[in-house]
Formats: sequence, structure tokens, C-alpha cells
Amino acid sequence: MDRGMAATSGTRYDHEHAGPLATPRGAAPAGRVPLTPHPDRLLPSEPSQRCIARRLYDSVRDLPLISPHGHVEARLLADDDAFTDPASLLVTPDHYVTRLLHAHGVPLADLGLRDSADDTDPAQPRDVWRTFCEHWHLFLGTASRGWLEAELHDVLGVTVQPSADTADELFDELTVRLRKPEFRPRALYDSFAIAALATTDDPTDDLSYHRALAEDPSWSGRVVPTFRPDRCLDATGSGWTTALDDLAAASGIDTGDYDGLIRALENRREHFRAHGATATDHSAPDARMAFLDAVQAQRLFDAVRSGTASADDARLLSQQLLGEMARMSSEDGMVMALHTGSRRNHHPDTLRRFGPDTGHDIPLQAEFTRALQPMLERFGTNPRFQTVLFTLDETVFSRELAPLAGFYPSVYLGAPWWFLDAPRAMYRFRDAVTETAGFYRNAGFIDDTRGFCSIPARHDTARRVDAAHLAGLVAEHVLSEDDAALVIHDLHDRQPRKAFRL
Amino acid sequence: MDRGMAATSGTRYDHEHAGPLATPRGAAPAGRVPLTPHPDRLLPSEPSQRCIARRLYDSVRDLPLISPHGHVEARLLADDDAFTDPASLLVTPDHYVTRLLHAHGVPLADLGLRDSADDTDPAQPRDVWRTFCEHWHLFLGTASRGWLEAELHDVLGVTVQPSADTADELFDELTVRLRKPEFRPRALYDSFAIAALATTDDPTDDLSYHRALAEDPSWSGRVVPTFRPDRCLDATGSGWTTALDDLAAASGIDTGDYDGLIRALENRREHFRAHGATATDHSAPDARMAFLDAVQAQRLFDAVRSGTASADDARLLSQQLLGEMARMSSEDGMVMALHTGSRRNHHPDTLRRFGPDTGHDIPLQAEFTRALQPMLERFGTNPRFQTVLFTLDETVFSRELAPLAGFYPSVYLGAPWWFLDAPRAMYRFRDAVTETAGFYRNAGFIDDTRGFCSIPARHDTARRVDAAHLAGLVAEHVLSEDDAALVIHDLHDRQPRKAFRL
Amino acid sequence: MDRGMAATSGTRYDHEHAGPLATPRGAAPAGRVPLTPHPDRLLPSEPSQRCIARRLYDSVRDLPLISPHGHVEARLLADDDAFTDPASLLVTPDHYVTRLLHAHGVPLADLGLRDSADDTDPAQPRDVWRTFCEHWHLFLGTASRGWLEAELHDVLGVTVQPSADTADELFDELTVRLRKPEFRPRALYDSFAIAALATTDDPTDDLSYHRALAEDPSWSGRVVPTFRPDRCLDATGSGWTTALDDLAAASGIDTGDYDGLIRALENRREHFRAHGATATDHSAPDARMAFLDAVQAQRLFDAVRSGTASADDARLLSQQLLGEMARMSSEDGMVMALHTGSRRNHHPDTLRRFGPDTGHDIPLQAEFTRALQPMLERFGTNPRFQTVLFTLDETVFSRELAPLAGFYPSVYLGAPWWFLDAPRAMYRFRDAVTETAGFYRNAGFIDDTRGFCSIPARHDTARRVDAAHLAGLVAEHVLSEDDAALVIHDLHDRQPRKAFRL
Repeated sequence: MDRGMAATSGTRYDHEHAGPLATPRGAAPAGRVPLTPHPDRLLPSEPSQRCIARRLYDSVRDLPLISPHGHVEARLLADDDAFTDPASLLVTPDHYVTRLLHAHGVPLADLGLRDSADDTDPAQPRDVWRTFCEHWHLFLGTASRGWLEAELHDVLGVTVQPSADTADELFDELTVRLRKPEFRPRALYDSFAIAALATTDDPTDDLSYHRALAEDPSWSGRVVPTFRPDRCLDATGSGWTTALDDLAAASGIDTGDYDGLIRALENRREHFRAHGATATDHSAPDARMAFLDAVQAQRLFDAVRSGTASADDARLLSQQLLGEMARMSSEDGMVMALHTGSRRNHHPDTLRRFGPDTGHDIPLQAEFTRALQPMLERFGTNPRFQTVLFTLDETVFSRELAPLAGFYPSVYLGAPWWFLDAPRAMYRFRDAVTETAGFYRNAGFIDDTRGFCSIPARHDTARRVDAAHLAGLVAEHVLSEDDAALVIHDLHDRQPRKAFRL
Repeated sequence: MDRGMAATSGTRYDHEHAGPLATPRGAAPAGRVPLTPHPDRLLPSEPSQRCIARRLYDSVRDLPLISPHGHVEARLLADDDAFTDPASLLVTPDHYVTRLLHAHGVPLADLGLRDSADDTDPAQPRDVWRTFCEHWHLFLGTASRGWLEAELHDVLGVTVQPSADTADELFDELTVRLRKPEFRPRALYDSFAIAALATTDDPTDDLSYHRALAEDPSWSGRVVPTFRPDRCLDATGSGWTTALDDLAAASGIDTGDYDGLIRALENRREHFRAHGATATDHSAPDARMAFLDAVQAQRLFDAVRSGTASADDARLLSQQLLGEMARMSSEDGMVMALHTGSRRNHHPDTLRRFGPDTGHDIPLQAEFTRALQPMLERFGTNPRFQTVLFTLDETVFSRELAPLAGFYPSVYLGAPWWFLDAPRAMYRFRDAVTETAGFYRNAGFIDDTRGFCSIPARHDTARRVDAAHLAGLVAEHVLSEDDAALVIHDLHDRQPRKAFRL
Repeated sequence: MDRGMAATSGTRYDHEHAGPLATPRGAAPAGRVPLTPHPDRLLPSEPSQRCIARRLYDSVRDLPLISPHGHVEARLLADDDAFTDPASLLVTPDHYVTRLLHAHGVPLADLGLRDSADDTDPAQPRDVWRTFCEHWHLFLGTASRGWLEAELHDVLGVTVQPSADTADELFDELTVRLRKPEFRPRALYDSFAIAALATTDDPTDDLSYHRALAEDPSWSGRVVPTFRPDRCLDATGSGWTTALDDLAAASGIDTGDYDGLIRALENRREHFRAHGATATDHSAPDARMAFLDAVQAQRLFDAVRSGTASADDARLLSQQLLGEMARMSSEDGMVMALHTGSRRNHHPDTLRRFGPDTGHDIPLQAEFTRALQPMLERFGTNPRFQTVLFTLDETVFSRELAPLAGFYPSVYLGAPWWFLDAPRAMYRFRDAVTETAGFYRNAGFIDDTRGFCSIPARHDTARRVDAAHLAGLVAEHVLSEDDAALVIHDLHDRQPRKAFRL
């Protein structure tokens, strides 16, 4: 019955004999397919635009990388230990990768995650890598596929596509290569031309790894901590009292009352600044902040601490504490990065067995106009205060974020984040905000990555997308190529330095 | 005063003498204009993309059609009666068409709909057809225009555009043609190369037409029912008690208490499965489901049944019953298709006079992340359970649906639906979901049509759009043409079979 | 470390020596750069599309301008006084311009706005102009940049880009030129080929300037008032009672009770119609309207008037009064233009010091489906009633506005408004609504401008974007170029006349 032809083979494509539940054989080509990322990837195909885009991309391709927000740990560079194998490097720790494999029925334990409800060990790296390679086609069209191709080819020198047939040879080849000196973290840091790397750290962290790097004469890089106090601000969870005890221990300040908690937080911010921190980072359900007076705050604190408060009171206290962070930023000048709108740990059984950050945080509708008004009324025009706003909800790009950043000197547009840090989503972001806010209210790109080797791939993607976007504007005579060349340079150099005060 | 020129005529365009309320004469060209849908329609105009898109489109153009959700009735094929005339076939039953004519001031009765508040007969088919042809230009740029051009030209062999001048000859020509054997429903079913067609049926339907087809040796097609229990689940409306009585009669199970209702629904699902059903279909105001215990459910049922319940209680019971559908699907394996977010019958006077499905169901904001959490907590990773999610609100494509389908093995992305089943909206859908969920979490295309002759036109549109979208990715070197060829084949063959278990 | 090259100079771009807080030197090129807007700006770069777009654009480029909604005052044309200088003409009154400069740290007083909290005079025009020119690069990519380039070049004959180096010569050159007769308002009105211009006026306005123009034998233009009763309808603010007193004085009708207020509003609408008004214009937080009976309305009115009402009651009364406007339109046939969804005066300190309309009105989420249902149930199919809907929230284009306009004969799609009246946003609007509502439910373009000289620039932008959008559809064979030529003509001539009954 099937009269269809595979576009490129010319041979009859026989789908009748494949069961509906079989892995789509079509998309998983057998044998060896070369891995050759195209030099013009992500650039427009229309010839006049492509020529412009190439020139713009070439002008920033080799700029040093500025990474003001991410999840690489200072310890990685302080210890400079070799990576062990490709699965532990590229698969198991990357919830972008594990979540999509899980969606296709692969148990997380088969990807190397430990199941706390199961005593047996998770799969071994070689088996994890095989599973990943067998499902490589499932990533077609995703942001992860682009990053992984670039990591494998540009960073790790792989020249064949992962597949069932190439899994073992790739595993062996990469395991050997990763042990070489030039693939150690510090060597990669240099070869990536990283100018500044910000880590994300708990207020109780003594930052010893940051200090060790700073004091190491053999190390010339720049790794700064970021103050991420979510644990201490989220008064709705069971972990809050523990967090306050840890904070007291770290600061030497009693956190048994509201004023003590505030002083302890201020103390740790100072500790972070002393180690080079220029920013704080906050995850919250939404952007609302409260500004209660001292008496109300103390009463709320006591109620929550004693466990007699309602869920609403606990939420209000969390909003009050986030408001205090804004107030502190307006005094100490630390840039306030705000990530909101994610429903964390959507699937309780997966949380129970595999822990948080395992791929089931799902975005929610965002609202900033009303939520941020009380804070911006207080600090929006304060020259010491600066905030960078991130969202998982595209609808606020043109409706709320660009208008806010187009009036308040303190508000910077954060790069498209998380599910939106992908080429087409970045393009939609530029399309949505530029006409209202221009280019100079942007905080530039952040990679937000846990995967050290994905840093250059992610920045390269962002530079290609900006080159493509600007080339379209140049080709349609909205701005000149000279202006575009200077804009793209600023987007990947001056804007992130300025927005994060690096 | 007008110094404008019509682009192509070169003659002065005289608008001074046309009253502001006149039909835009400009857009309704007089005389005979040929109807010649272009073979490359909907493919990108940029030459490198067009060549790729053509090859991709050609590779799936003739694939058999899989239609897992629509509103064609089994009786049409069981009886195989000839269609009578073009107005009754293409205009009167298509609320996409009648609604837009209504928006331009054409009374629905003039389009053949019976006005229950008016004893006089609605317009005759020939007059309906004239009205439609006179307003043909109003459909320029709409999805309906594309489908109608394809139906008229490719299916019905029309070679001239509808217009005031051609209305009568087209009516006569088509009325004669529709009586020919090759234009009977079964002959068209074969010529459309339909591989599987799912109808949408009430739980009380005895499915006799499906049985008749199955038992007819002269019939080789595949027509399966779909279990659509909205009437029995919506406890907020006056029709609910009647629906329960009908359900009791059909199942032979007393629906006077909650347990009886549940058993009766399970009984009918089994009846549908026995006749080949693989899926259930649900329309609801939103995606919330409740999971009360038996005692609470019985109490709620009694209150609503006795008319003593509040509107909130009735809504909660409806959510509870939808939750039972998810539970049943997790046991019997019927795929749960969920369509939410439409405000039905927005204009009460039109409902009163012309009934439902007359073009004034208007979309609402959608929310899935919170709404589906309780259900997905229970069944999201259950291998028996599968759901396909549809929305009328584009904003959830990237924000909620792709992230959910990118983690939960049970969640499939439904095709852009209803107002969004149009070329550009389909393109935006691919753009929004692919980077997060890839291609293999898609349920493929559904035509959702009441118009039998529009089935090939709608699938052809979807194949063209997918070819165009993939061609863009290939031309920008995001994936190879080989991979794209296999992806588009799977999108129109394996994915719908897999998602709907056909 | 920087291995980047500026795309077009080939010289090393030295960013190491520029402090992170310096004005992005890159984007502010020193010296003299010619100002030469390209004739093909905003048209697609793909050659086949560009040729079509050029022809379509040429066919409407010189059509007379119809401006059914804007903020130019009748007095400007009645007095016909010369403009004084470029800063007072282009910078100080344009909150699109001042807001973005403010976002980059420029105090509003430095842009010529008077600070009521500061006795010293605001900056002088020459200094304002210098500040503007020094920050010219900040507008790259914004809608304002495009309009300003067109105003400077096409209207004012400027041939060099504003910059620190050219500020003074441009100020002098323009100050002289603006004094010439051909740059007086009436002369510009003629050279702009304006066919009709609607102003926006308070109900208490005696419309003497409109009358003066109508009675002036030397004046052949058409300037009509628009009835904008926001002050009298917003019962939530302190200004309401004053507004009612003013209304009583203007109408000679006691507004001390609800019925009097209604009769006074009807009286003023009649006054406006007698002076050529065809439409009313309304700004509201959202689109909800109430339809209480006379007794409830009177009770509510008394409570609010006496200051004993709750905030909710005041809001309900405002919704009731907006509902009365819809009712009046259904009787007197004035078109009801509705702009909703802006959080006015987001920054209280700026409001206190510089007043309203100073760049900090921020959009909110919009909802129309539920909000408009009670009104459309009453008047949606009433042939006397017509409404044009505007939004700041793009998400309702495809979800709510196109479906509503695609059924209700009274509902017209307003052009993308305010932050959305920019090329790419207009393009997204066409993309979102056309497939559902076609082209003939559009109200055409409105410029909504306070800047008289920006009127031709804004209409030209809209014509270019429509030409680009239609060229894409023609190149992809969705419609013929003949049809496209007639559509674009109707969009810029017949549709606004029809939608606003001009």
C-alpha cells in the first residue's frame, strides 16, 4: 500500500514489517555515519544573509568566553583530575539528556543514576554509553544534539556519529583520550579561552576551592563564586530549619531570630564578595517579594520556625527574605539574578528515588509586571541595584521583560534560559525583545551548564544565533553591517561584564 | 487623491466610488479566474530550501493516510450514499466556513443551517453555494481556503475559482459529478489511500455501522470507533442525568450510584475495544482531574444527581470522572486523547437558534503543568497508560507540553488543533516543541475533520509544512537530509500508529 | 587574548582598554556617518520575495494616509504655528524615546521633562538634543530608530546620522528648517497626503479647534474628534468626582445621580458626532463590562460617590460604565475602540515627579474570551455596533482575538499597538491572525502617535511589513500576486474606513 520513497535512497522504504512499538528504525541509521558539524550550521541559508552572518560570526567566534552563571564546580579546576569516561562526562550528569531518554522508556538507573529504593548498583558507564548511542536519533532537532555534536567533534575529536555499531569503539577511544593531559579541566579551561567563570554556591560554602585557585601561582584563570541562598530563603520546605542551623554554624551568628538570620546572610554575602563574587542567584516559584516591617517579619519568622504557620505564611516569609536580598543588593551592589517559574520535582516518585534535578522540573506561567512592582518601586532606579531576569515562559519576553528593561536602569534581560536556551528559542527571544529594548539592555549569554565541556559549544551556538539574527536585520536594511558587527561584539563581551559587574 | 496603482494591472485602482461598506471589490475579481493550486505551495521560496523540501515532500506525499481522530461517521461509509451537491458537502456542515461568512454579516440560515426560532426553511443548496462563491475572497490567507482549493481541484476536478460569475456552473457541474460512482464515499476512501480512520462516538452508540463495515466482505478499509464520553462526564450540564439514563440502557447497568456509573463506563469501553477502538477522546474546560476516594465520590455523585450540589461540586465530580478515565486507560490501555481550553457556545442566541458546533466556541488560556500533576503522579510512568495532549493556546507548546512530553513516557504531543491546524501555526508548533522534545514525542497529524473530502487536503498540508520545516533545518545544517527523510516518514506513519496504538 | 576581528574593518577590535561601564564605544561610531534609509528596508532579502514585495509596496506607498486613532491635537493644525527645534519636536514629547534613554541612566529632566519636585528648569533643547545624539546607538534595532531615521531623512531632509560629533550642526540646521513655511503643520499635513486624522479628546472638550478648522475656508483637510471618556468612567481614582463635575459643566446636565451621568455622557457623544466623530476610545485595565439594572447601578454610584464603596465596588462601577458605552455604541453607531491590559504608572516616584505617560506603563496578561462574553452576548451581532480590539499581549492574537473576529460581525482586529507597533511584532500579528480570520476582519493600521512628523513614517513601516508578509504568501503560492495587490490596497484604504466608519 505504501507508495512512499525515502528521499535520498530511491529505494522502497518498507515500514510494513516494523511493529508500531519498534524503535523508529528509519531515524537510527545502521552502520557508520561520519560526524561532521557544518561550519555554517545555524546560519541562514539565504545567500545574502549567510555571507553577512559568516562575517559577523567570524568576528566573535574566538572572543574569550564570559560565563556569569553556571553549575561547574570550583573543585573541578582546583583538583584538575582527569575525566574518567564519556558516559560519566556527557550522559549521567546531564538531565537534558537523561530526561529525553527517560521519556522513551529508558529507566534512569540504566543511565547511571542511583535509585535509592534499589540496592543494586546503577548501570556501568560502558552500558550507559551504549544505551545513549542506541538512542542517538531521539535527539535529532534538539538543542542537546547540537551541543553534543560540537562537544564530541570540536572538543573531543570524534569523527563518527554515535550508534549501536560505534558505541564501544567510541567509549574506548574517549576513555583513553580523556586521560591525556590536554583533556584535564585546567587545560580545557585554557583551550576554551574562558575569561571568567562564575560558579553557584551555597551560603555555607567556605569557598576553599575558590581560595585555593586564587592562591595557586600556576593558575591564571578567573573563577568567582555566586551567592545562591535558596535553601535559606525557602521557608516553605522542611529543609529550612536545617539550612538556618548550617548558616549559623558558617557565619557564627545565631539565626534563631529574624534579625540574626538577616545579619548572617549579610555576613556570608560579604564573605562571598571577599572571594570575588559579584552576583547572587535566586530560584523562586515566582518573582513576588514582600517588604514587611521588622515587627511583622519577626512575628512571621517565629510562627514558621515554631511550625505553627500556615503555608501562606511560609510563602510570605520566603517572599520577605527574597525582598531582603534585593535590599542587600541595593546596598552591597551584588547583581541579583532571578530565575522563576519552574514547578520543581513534578514527579514525586522520581524525586524520592533519584533526587532533585533529574529532569522533571516543569515550567509555569510567568508574571513580572505586578510581581516586581513593589521591589522596583523601592530599588528600580537605585544606581547600586542591578537585577537580571530569566524566564521559562516566552510570553513575557515582549509583554513584560522588554518593557521593564526599557524603562528601569536596574533591569537587564537575561538570556533565554533552560528549555529556551536553544537556537530557535534564542531567535524568538531576540525577535520579541529587540524592537522595544534594543540590544543594550541585554545581559548577554549565560551557559547555565553542569557540563564543563559544553561551555564552548553553548557559547558558540549563541554567537551563531546572534550572527544569524543580526544578518537578517542587515539584509533587510534595518541596521548597517558596521553597526551589527559592533553590536554582536558587545553582546558577547561588554554586556555580560556590565550586567554582572564582572 | 489616490496615487496608488494595483501592482499587476498597471491601471488606476479607483476606490473613491466604492462605499466603505461595499464588499471589497478589489479582492473579489470579476469574471473567470483559473483554479490552479501550485505544486510547490507551502514550500519555502528560498531555492536551496525548496529543493530539499520538494524531495522530502515527494517522499511522503503518497504515504497512506492515518486518521486517528476525526468526525466522519461510520454510517457514511456503511451506507455509501452519493453526496448530493457542493453546498451540502463543503459549506453548510463546515463551521470553519460558516463562521467566517457569519462574521461578514451572512445569516447562518442563508448558509443552510436551520433556525429553530424560524419556521421558514433555510436557504436551498444552490443559493448557499452562490453566497459562498460571492464571498470566496474573504477566505484568502485562511487555512480553509487552502483546503477548499485542494478539495475542489484535486478531489473534485474543478479548474475555475468560485466567484459570483462561476457559482451556477460550478454548482451544476459538481452536482452531476458527485453522483458518479467514483465519487461515492467508499471509492473516495480508496482513492485517498486511507490506511485507518477513527470515528468519534458516544458511549451509548451500538457501533452497528462499524460492525456492518467489519462484516462486509466487499469492504477492505479500516474504520475504528473512538470512545467519547463527554456527555456522561460533564456533571455541570442539564444533559447529564439523561446521559446517565442512556448509558444505563446501553450497558444494562444501573447508573443510579457512582459505582454503577463507573462499571457502566468500563462496560462500554470494553464494547468499543471489541469493535476495534484503541483510544478515548475527551473535551473538557481544562485538564484538571480529581482522585477522590469511593466514599467522597459517592457523596458528590448523590449531591449532583439530586440537584443539591453547588456548581463547584458539579465541576469537581466532572474532574473526578475524567480522572477515572485516566485510571481506566492505565488498566485497559486505551489511549487518552485530551482536548481542553475551549469556551463552548460563546453566543447564547446562536446556540438557542442553531445549536452547538456553529462556530462560536472560543479558546481560553491553557494550563497543564499544575493541572496534570496529580494524574501524572499516578500514571505518568505506567507503561499501559498513554495520553495525547491538544491545546488551543500556543503558549503551552514550549512552556508546558514539550517539557512534559520530554520526561513522561506516557505523554505525546498532539498536533496543532482546531484554530491552530493551519500551515503557519503548525510551523510555529514545530518551532516551539522540537528543540525540547525532538520529533519522536509527537503523535503525528490528526485531521479532526467533519468533511470527508478534506481529509487528503489536510494531511497534504501537514506533510508540506513538515517538509518545509525540516528543509529549513537541513539547509541550516541542523540535521542531514537523510535524517530528515526518515523523520518525516516516521511523523506520518510510525508516530501516529504508536501514539494511538493503531 | 581577544582574537576577534570587527567584521567590516579588518582591524583588531581592542576591547581590553574599554571599561565595562563605558558607553559601548563600538556601537557609537565616531565622526560622520551618512543617514541613508534604504529603499528596500523591511522587505525580505530572498530575491523572489523581494521583487514581489517591492511591487506590492509600490502599489500602496503613495495611498493617502488614514489615521483613525492618534494623539495629535486639533490645535496644532488650527494654529499652524511653526515647530521650534528638533528636541521639542522629536525627543521630549516621545516617551518611546525618553524611556529607553532613562533605562540607560539618563534623568528625565535631562530630556526636557519638568521635575515637579525640583525648582530648577529642565535641560534646554540644545542640551536635550546633544544627549539624544550621543545615545543614538542605543536605539539600534528598535521601532523608534526606524521611525526617527525616516522622519529625519524623508521629512526633515537630514543626511547624517545623529552622533556626539553631529549634534550641534543638526540642531542648528533643523531649527532653521523648521521655521520655513513648508514645515508648518498644515503644509506637512498636505505633503503627508493625510486623508483623515482622528484626534483623541476629553468629553468636556468644546471641540472649538475642530470647529475652527471645519469653518476655515483655507483648510481642506479632515480632522475629526474621538470621544475618550476614561476620566469619567474610571470610578476607582480620586479624579472621578472632579471629572463628573467637569462633565456636568460641559453638558449642562446634573451628574449627581447615575441617570444624570448617563444622560450627560450621551449628550457629549452627540456633541462629538455633530463635530464629525465616528468613534469612541477606551483605556481600561481589562475588557470586562458589567450590565447591572438601574437600581443596582444607582446604589453603586451613590456608594462610590459618597466614598463609602470598596475598591471592588468602584471597579464594578467602572465596568458598568464601560458597558454603558457599548450599549450607547449599539444605539448611536459610534465605533468602540478598546485598549486594555496596561499597568499604568508602574514607578510611583516618576509619576509623582514627572506625571503620567512618561514611559512606565507596563503591559499585563490579557483575557478577552470570558471578559467580552456578556457584552457580545448583548451586542455582538447588532449591526449598529462595532468594536475594534487592541492588546499589548501577543498571546491573544491567535487564541482569542482572531477567533472572536472570525465569528462576530461587530468585532474588528485592531493593529498591533504600542510596544507591538513594530515591524517584527506586526509580522507576528499577521502570522497569528490571518489563518483564522483572513484579511477582511482587520481594522487596518493606526499610528497612535503624539509625534505629528512620525505619522508618515509609521504608516510607511506598516505598508512595508504588509508587503513583506504578503510577498511571503505569494512566493509560497498561498495566494496570487493579483489577490495580494488587492488585499494590501484594502488593508490601507477600505478596511480602516470600514472599521472606524470614516
